Amino acid sequence: MAAVDDLIERHQETLSRALTALTDRDYWSPYPEFPKAYGESGPTDGKAAFDGLLNSTFELPGHPAAGDLVGTEVSPYGLELDIAYPRAEVDALLAAARAAGPAWADAGPAARAALCLEILARINARSHEMANAVMHTTGQAYAMAFQAGGPHAQDRGLEAVAYAYAEQTRLPRQAGWTKPQGKRDPLVLSKEFITVPRGTALVIGCNTFPTWNGYPGLFASLATGNPVVVKPHPRAVLPLALTVRIAREALAEAGFDPNLVTLAAERDREGIAKTLALHPDVRIIDYTGSTEFGDWLEQNATQALVYTEKAGVNTVVVDSTDDYKGMLNNLAFALSLYTGQMCTTPQNLLIPRTGVQTDQGAKSYDEVVADLARAIEGLLGDDARAAAILGAVVNPAVLQRSAAAASGEYGDIALAPRVVESAEFPGATIRTPALIKVEAHKPDDRAVFLTECFGPVFFAVAVDSTADAVDLLRRTVSEQGAMTATGYTTSPEVERQLVRACLDSGVCLSLNLTGGVYPNQTAAFSDLHGTGANPAANAAYTDAAFVANRFRVVEVRRPA
Amino acid sequence: MAAVDDLIERHQETLSRALTALTDRDYWSPYPEFPKAYGESGPTDGKAAFDGLLNSTFELPGHPAAGDLVGTEVSPYGLELDIAYPRAEVDALLAAARAAGPAWADAGPAARAALCLEILARINARSHEMANAVMHTTGQAYAMAFQAGGPHAQDRGLEAVAYAYAEQTRLPRQAGWTKPQGKRDPLVLSKEFITVPRGTALVIGCNTFPTWNGYPGLFASLATGNPVVVKPHPRAVLPLALTVRIAREALAEAGFDPNLVTLAAERDREGIAKTLALHPDVRIIDYTGSTEFGDWLEQNATQALVYTEKAGVNTVVVDSTDDYKGMLNNLAFALSLYTGQMCTTPQNLLIPRTGVQTDQGAKSYDEVVADLARAIEGLLGDDARAAAILGAVVNPAVLQRSAAAASGEYGDIALAPRVVESAEFPGATIRTPALIKVEAHKPDDRAVFLTECFGPVFFAVAVDSTADAVDLLRRTVSEQGAMTATGYTTSPEVERQLVRACLDSGVCLSLNLTGGVYPNQTAAFSDLHGTGANPAANAAYTDAAFVANRFRVVEVRRPA
Repeated sequence: MAAVDDLIERHQETLSRALTALTDRDYWSPYPEFPKAYGESGPTDGKAAFDGLLNSTFELPGHPAAGDLVGTEVSPYGLELDIAYPRAEVDALLAAARAAGPAWADAGPAARAALCLEILARINARSHEMANAVMHTTGQAYAMAFQAGGPHAQDRGLEAVAYAYAEQTRLPRQAGWTKPQGKRDPLVLSKEFITVPRGTALVIGCNTFPTWNGYPGLFASLATGNPVVVKPHPRAVLPLALTVRIAREALAEAGFDPNLVTLAAERDREGIAKTLALHPDVRIIDYTGSTEFGDWLEQNATQALVYTEKAGVNTVVVDSTDDYKGMLNNLAFALSLYTGQMCTTPQNLLIPRTGVQTDQGAKSYDEVVADLARAIEGLLGDDARAAAILGAVVNPAVLQRSAAAASGEYGDIALAPRVVESAEFPGATIRTPALIKVEAHKPDDRAVFLTECFGPVFFAVAVDSTADAVDLLRRTVSEQGAMTATGYTTSPEVERQLVRACLDSGVCLSLNLTGGVYPNQTAAFSDLHGTGANPAANAAYTDAAFVANRFRVVEVRRPA
Repeated sequence: MAAVDDLIERHQETLSRALTALTDRDYWSPYPEFPKAYGESGPTDGKAAFDGLLNSTFELPGHPAAGDLVGTEVSPYGLELDIAYPRAEVDALLAAARAAGPAWADAGPAARAALCLEILARINARSHEMANAVMHTTGQAYAMAFQAGGPHAQDRGLEAVAYAYAEQTRLPRQAGWTKPQGKRDPLVLSKEFITVPRGTALVIGCNTFPTWNGYPGLFASLATGNPVVVKPHPRAVLPLALTVRIAREALAEAGFDPNLVTLAAERDREGIAKTLALHPDVRIIDYTGSTEFGDWLEQNATQALVYTEKAGVNTVVVDSTDDYKGMLNNLAFALSLYTGQMCTTPQNLLIPRTGVQTDQGAKSYDEVVADLARAIEGLLGDDARAAAILGAVVNPAVLQRSAAAASGEYGDIALAPRVVESAEFPGATIRTPALIKVEAHKPDDRAVFLTECFGPVFFAVAVDSTADAVDLLRRTVSEQGAMTATGYTTSPEVERQLVRACLDSGVCLSLNLTGGVYPNQTAAFSDLHGTGANPAANAAYTDAAFVANRFRVVEVRRPA
């Protein structure tokens, strides 16, 4: 296929560079994160493309279709999207995947990597359109929807493709084998090692990061030869529907069956994910969402490899700092960004009752809490700026938790949430964070802060000492799971204890972040997202383990 | 630890060479497979050491012990071993593993690889003793027990250690990260990547290859930082008990807790494997044995990573050959070796009714069957030679199948099994293979030959054509699973079809073996054992997927 050879050549350098980046772990990305890099008219063109999708049927030529259309997406910014997606029966989706599979399996790792890079390049070129789609399904503010939903998600996709390529080419395609036999002739064989896919893969998307959390599994499975059925969250269909359509176009143009990537749009409460997940054809599942459904998948979809990212409770230990202002600003931004609706947002800030040593002198628990509250107020004082950082509340359950915090239900209010009005989107639901004071040793308080309280509610937990804080961090991660852990300390001994606790409980640790990197952000090609070593997730983005079992190797040997 | 540093240095070259071998896939082994390489007195010393183990209590100093002793091993050669093993309660075994774990987790990949190589070197030095232990638990003849139970098993262990080391060192231990910020100062972080183990691992051994099938999981888990509980098959305890004791000695001498490797000897029918497998502490399980229990593990031990090797039906397609005699001799040996009690032994020989083209002219189905029967008779005509190839029948169920074949229960007898007397071991139960003629399209025959008939019973299956044979191979592997597939053909087109069928169904293929390599043998560092892509096994020895998920990586990042 000439088209495929062209793509291999076109994307060779990016793939090589990605492979180097995975080993170096220094900063690298081929997808610019600055909106301006996408041309003068990029934002306007992207908005126009998005507007063109509204109030219409989402076309997927050649896609299995039961005949009816589904879709009830409403933007957290108040906009009704009114996009109707073609629905397909589970059996039709899986039959289409089965039919599409063989040619893709035979294409080999290099061709598949090239096709995946072509898909990513086309998605990248449409980052402004995607930003609108992500914004109006997740509630992320535009700048974040652009970066996290666009280039950063693409980075995570490319990272998975590069790992998949590396793993599939670890064994030589052919090898000679000569075994000496003393005085007799040696035994000589010629051996081939050929990768074969597992089978059909299922990606179950989430509401808040449909692309960022969806791309690693989607591209890891596709690059290793498996057809992929994408089951988006019913409230965040559009970003993945666009992704699926772009993938189908690229695949078809290169001569492959577009049904290698299909969309499982579903009726309200249809529960198609369960039906798909238990189907014997489905051999790989990537899931991001609630702990309840993730645990169900791990326990019931035993015919498949199941990669889950579930809920957790992220903890910050505040021991001491030589940049008190930097710490407060870093935490204020980390808690505010996207209304605390990131799986990586810290929830509990453990602050010793005995106070915190800082470059501005010793600060008591109450002072630290008050100063953090002020830092958040300062950051979000202006409504326009607040809206640009907070984005919008993604769903009614999050809004309810903000209201509960405001009513004092969770504990003493150190900072009450504030309603932010958006001039641009009067229908947007926007709330600033609530900061609640609780005590580590009060059973009632523990019942509250030791469960995930997803959204803009944060707990300033008074602990007896830093040692207590470290213990509580360890226990919280081990029992509740966590995607991130954060520490502030100037003491090498406390730092050692924090590292020890994080190794014991299996969570990645950010130490003393006071500048432009936040505990809830990870960068592809360098940072791991999650560890797979605590209850919050059974895998990480991205390591060899995330891709190495998505394919198998068949050996053929013959006398040479 | 000076001792550990010494071991790292001592084994560095072997580890390096193993890592190269994994990439090259040419023949390599650091453990000589010729008995004479172990010294003049090796065999006598090994026998004496084995004799010293009989009729006594197997000592495991420092091992958890409930106080009672268990053990009822009887050699397939008629010898009562009368070895009593200390039994331990499940909770005590797991508590001991938990206590031993942290220092091992902290030791790091290099120290763990060195300790594993030291254990393997000590096992290697005792290969003659191990050969006796393997012989008198599995029924393998001495020469095979020596090779497969000794150096070849050690090769598979080392292969797992090398893969584990490679995977754990894929990420740099430390990395710098500098992200440009236009005119502002770049963001700069320093990152550490630290491997952490999964938790306690369980190895469930089998009766026929306790070391060869036990070592990959044992060493993969140990090298990645996990304590290992070894649960041997009740009829083949000694080889793994010796292994455990040697491992404990090496670990203790280097300053580690010997309870990193423990033995779960059990009372008759105690069923300790189920209790261990469902315990929340157990995070990794390696299992070789029946499909029934393997499937049960995959479906129920959902808290653990489960690697299984179960049963299958191995097929040979006989289309044509340019070395008829070589083919017959190769097959005769493959079917005879260890009384067909290898998971890799071909069971069904698919032979076209239309005949087979050979260098000795066209041969009809009946001629091929008769010639194969004669080749087996020729190979096993002498009792002493027969005993040296066949070994002994491992258990009563295998003997029963040989008897059923002899009675005509499975179909027309092309070659009846013969009782072989061993001069050395009058109590040994030895049977030559039975060759049964069946028809591919007869439902009654299909019911017989399309299920695993473990042991010395083989089916010469009459098929309408080679195309039929290839179809049947594909279906058998997909539905029943298989560890091996074998083909004989001089036609490039048939070869293509065979490769296609094996890729589709996910089984490794040996083509046209007519010399000193047999379809049921695989060599570590070059051949994959199994694929994990069909129902016979969900993993292979050994690839990156077999080790990459046995540990996780925790990242720690800080401002540089």
